[in-house]
Amino acid sequence: MLTHNSYFEGRVQSVGFERNGRKHTAGVIDAGEYHFGTGAAERMTVVSGELSIRVDGTADFHRYPAGTSFEVPASSGFDVRAAAPAAYLCEFL
Amino acid sequence: MLTHNSYFEGRVQSVGFERNGRKHTAGVIDAGEYHFGTGAAERMTVVSGELSIRVDGTADFHRYPAGTSFEVPASSGFDVRAAAPAAYLCEFL
Repeated sequence: MLTHNSYFEGRVQSVGFERNGRKHTAGVIDAGEYHFGTGAAERMTVVSGELSIRVDGTADFHRYPAGTSFEVPASSGFDVRAAAPAAYLCEFL
Repeated sequence: MLTHNSYFEGRVQSVGFERNGRKHTAGVIDAGEYHFGTGAAERMTVVSGELSIRVDGTADFHRYPAGTSFEVPASSGFDVRAAAPAAYLCEFL
């Protein structure tokens, strides 16, 4: 059973799925800057384009090009900047 | 501007975007077997899980695990089998 998720007036959208009991989403972040909160910890892998990320409580943005990933602790959050639309895979840990 | 696409009663869903003038989709294929036709040629990259693919006019299915990709000619198509939900990136060539 897939789900469709839409945030920020459709500027971030994803498709949710579950495999081996673990939740995942595959989605796209349109150009812009956004903040997301986390419930469970997440691993985000950039699969197309590039994202800049600042995890809550840290000082600087870091660039994550396609093929790289970052993790965000549970009950935290992160700012994400995209200069152009970028696709990602999110795994809930 | 992102778009949401849904096929096969929601069992295949994707989010469409454009970057550098090229169309892409990031999506998920639920467990099952489906046939897709192509307009433009496509490069499909499996980003999570595994897909088995038979391009139209060829005899056999081939397995594509996460991290691998295949291309489908324009004005053609392919059968895709997923034993479990799998995520992909599609680039229109």
